[in-house]
Amino acid sequence: MKAALSMLISSRNLSPHPSSSLSRSTWLRPKSLPNSPSIIPLIPSKSLSRLRLNHRKSHTAHFSSIMASSYKPEEARVPPALPLPAPPVNKFKIGLCQLSVTADKERNIAHARKAIEQAAAQGAQLVVLPEIWNGPYSNDSFPVFAEDIDAGGDASPSTAMLAEVAQRLKITIVGGSISERSGDQLYNTCCVFGTDGKLKAKHRKIHLFDIDIPGKITFIESKTLTAGQTPTIVDTEVGRIGIGICYDIRFQELAMIYGARGAHLICYPGAFNMTTGPLHWELLQRARATDNQLYVATCSPARDAGAGYVAWGHSTLVGPFGEVLATTEHEEAIIMAEVDYSLLELRRTNLPLLNQRRGDLYQLVDVQRLNSQ
Amino acid sequence: MKAALSMLISSRNLSPHPSSSLSRSTWLRPKSLPNSPSIIPLIPSKSLSRLRLNHRKSHTAHFSSIMASSYKPEEARVPPALPLPAPPVNKFKIGLCQLSVTADKERNIAHARKAIEQAAAQGAQLVVLPEIWNGPYSNDSFPVFAEDIDAGGDASPSTAMLAEVAQRLKITIVGGSISERSGDQLYNTCCVFGTDGKLKAKHRKIHLFDIDIPGKITFIESKTLTAGQTPTIVDTEVGRIGIGICYDIRFQELAMIYGARGAHLICYPGAFNMTTGPLHWELLQRARATDNQLYVATCSPARDAGAGYVAWGHSTLVGPFGEVLATTEHEEAIIMAEVDYSLLELRRTNLPLLNQRRGDLYQLVDVQRLNSQ
Repeated sequence: MKAALSMLISSRNLSPHPSSSLSRSTWLRPKSLPNSPSIIPLIPSKSLSRLRLNHRKSHTAHFSSIMASSYKPEEARVPPALPLPAPPVNKFKIGLCQLSVTADKERNIAHARKAIEQAAAQGAQLVVLPEIWNGPYSNDSFPVFAEDIDAGGDASPSTAMLAEVAQRLKITIVGGSISERSGDQLYNTCCVFGTDGKLKAKHRKIHLFDIDIPGKITFIESKTLTAGQTPTIVDTEVGRIGIGICYDIRFQELAMIYGARGAHLICYPGAFNMTTGPLHWELLQRARATDNQLYVATCSPARDAGAGYVAWGHSTLVGPFGEVLATTEHEEAIIMAEVDYSLLELRRTNLPLLNQRRGDLYQLVDVQRLNSQ
Repeated sequence: MKAALSMLISSRNLSPHPSSSLSRSTWLRPKSLPNSPSIIPLIPSKSLSRLRLNHRKSHTAHFSSIMASSYKPEEARVPPALPLPAPPVNKFKIGLCQLSVTADKERNIAHARKAIEQAAAQGAQLVVLPEIWNGPYSNDSFPVFAEDIDAGGDASPSTAMLAEVAQRLKITIVGGSISERSGDQLYNTCCVFGTDGKLKAKHRKIHLFDIDIPGKITFIESKTLTAGQTPTIVDTEVGRIGIGICYDIRFQELAMIYGARGAHLICYPGAFNMTTGPLHWELLQRARATDNQLYVATCSPARDAGAGYVAWGHSTLVGPFGEVLATTEHEEAIIMAEVDYSLLELRRTNLPLLNQRRGDLYQLVDVQRLNSQ
């Protein structure tokens, strides 16, 4: 078997005249794709055709457009990538609140409120909180600190605080995450609040943190939590933001989906640990930003060496060239930095990756966006 | 339009009960996919079913398999990812020859031969050469230094040398790249030679290096070169190796395809420059290795500050946890390092990403492998 495989692989590669691609469109564009009734289209399909048209038109400006067109760059994302939307603001300050977290929920809420107020006082229009900031990160604590976000009010004091402060200070908040109770399920959930204090989006961690590096770090989040069922991208007053929580950052496909949906920024509240933190935390942020040519912001809890789960810290803002724009060590801190979305177009002109992808060779399918059309 | 889009995105995210996925399989598994006659199947489909079966079986060992199965991890790659093949050797030495390159082809060939011999003398079973090692990297030089690899012999003294030395020393050579003339086209081409001196695979750079960072680096490879039409992965006596050339490394999809085809190692001969080198060279290598849980080896020419195109150097071997195992600065060097494929299984057990991907949300399609079935 192995020998045969080897031979076939080799002869394929040596074939001087590579395959035609006659059969491709048959499976990519089914004549009618039944829409599941529970799916609300992300984009009305009329608008989508318009967007596609614009998208193609803008590509013709690139220097290698004629050649590239035979490589079908627009098919490298299915459905085709949306053009980068004009952001509502080009430059603004972001504040990443790397908070210390205790077992006292009331204290954690008051403490987070104060940090958000400080960040806003320094000019932050967008404030990001850490993963699981209202209680300890542990399977024992998740059910104890969980809140019914959809019920709101007293059933969710953590998000009620976020809503209040977002409205009062007229800022956007990517509210890190808390454990969410919904029916008999628990989720690791990030809420995004707009400047009017309204809940704009709710992301439930899609990829649960189940890892086992013996003697270093073992954690099975799926013991208590259920995974979310949908990527989350939201238009805010500080741009189109994709949300991932911690382990979600390991899955490059999620960032690729957000890139193709027109994200300016991906926020990953996350609590990497003392093993994977030094190995991968900055690497993954920089890779997602560079590959997808967008901003990436992360926010971790501060390190508590006595906690059951010791967080790496190092909350960071990364620019679209993978450059670390602001970061910190492991102690409590508010990292203030400037985001400049005009760099997105610049970097995409410098390196026109969008127009250079080989849709004739690989295609990333965004299943829910495809199904919603 | 923007407001409407925002609202739709938000309401989608807030939907408490995410979509069912009834319609998915309809487009993914067309009843009959016409095979283009020019496509040689990579894997006989009977074998593929067997492989798939094994793949699924091996996954059931994972701790989160029952839960994960509803997330369809096996559908995150289309066709489903092949299991990692047992490598013919677990531990071996690799030699990366970071060569100085001049405008004298004969000298370059003799010089490369000597370096390969030195690496082999130090125990290298796999030797990797730089991108464009037989002449200067420039659009003016590509046609001048181009060789007709398929004709071989005197028409391709560079690859004739590689074949001779591979056979004589019984080593595998990933022969960097040279410019290849084929009919009236020029390619940037990497040849892989087996221990019997036979050409096992030929990779033509798929993504041409067309970038424009004004005042820093502008290069339009497509002025002279034609892009290759197929990913290249080859079974050698030192494992299954995927090949990319330089700018190919920017396209994460190629590495994902190789990962799904069972690569142990991806080799990227590459000549990053003084702008993108410090920004992205190591980052991209480490990201491809970490995300795909495999080895990555790169080989650059040594830096010649007086050349038209100044290479960054820094040839590197990266392990499956994204760890830099061996690297160098910009001067001529032979980097010797040990590869240990047993780490691949270990790291994939530590972080079972394969089983945690969300095929219900995203799918990476390997177009040629799909069409060849």
